[in-house]
Amino acid sequence: MLDIKHLMDEVNSTGGLYLYKKIGRLNNQVISVVQVADRTLDFHVHEQSDEMFCVLEGAFCLETDEGLLPIKAGEFVIVPKGTRHRPVVKELTKFLMVEMDGTLNKENSGDLYED
Amino acid sequence: MLDIKHLMDEVNSTGGLYLYKKIGRLNNQVISVVQVADRTLDFHVHEQSDEMFCVLEGAFCLETDEGLLPIKAGEFVIVPKGTRHRPVVKELTKFLMVEMDGTLNKENSGDLYED
Repeated sequence: MLDIKHLMDEVNSTGGLYLYKKIGRLNNQVISVVQVADRTLDFHVHEQSDEMFCVLEGAFCLETDEGLLPIKAGEFVIVPKGTRHRPVVKELTKFLMVEMDGTLNKENSGDLYED
Repeated sequence: MLDIKHLMDEVNSTGGLYLYKKIGRLNNQVISVVQVADRTLDFHVHEQSDEMFCVLEGAFCLETDEGLLPIKAGEFVIVPKGTRHRPVVKELTKFLMVEMDGTLNKENSGDLYED
């Protein structure tokens, strides 16, 4: 049976801030949603996986060696593997994320990623 | 330089109905947008790739051997590889799609897919 999910319902039911919820898998990619506010992660690199950040609600900055890149609701960015980056989040922001399965862990996701 | 794109701007600038626009690639997946109306594709199977349909605006039915599954704006469904399916689209519907690179072609996309 195919499973239909509503993106906003999914991100609104994660159970709180910083709690990643996996909402789908396809072709060895994990699709997840998370709510974040007032958090700047440490710089990190995903050596094996590109990473997509899509903003469902709110706005944040993606910081790379090129500087701060503002990304607002309805927009997305793909960070190529090997790119040093970190999200800088002030206001409450709701994300849709896509990465290769196994990419996110407690070290690069703010200690709250459940595998 | 990282590229920021706005999903609705992308799907609104495809140039017309049935014209797939590739808006990103990550981990051997292609992210594309397309506007469709009044079109029922032939049943087909992607043997190698799962396929994600996300509705940005409008609504459609995904038909499989289990029947018709209505999917509306803000919702998504992932069709596992090997699943016989076809989209049944009546009203104008704007899609975000994710598949493995090389999955879509003229035979399974209504003759208008540009590689």
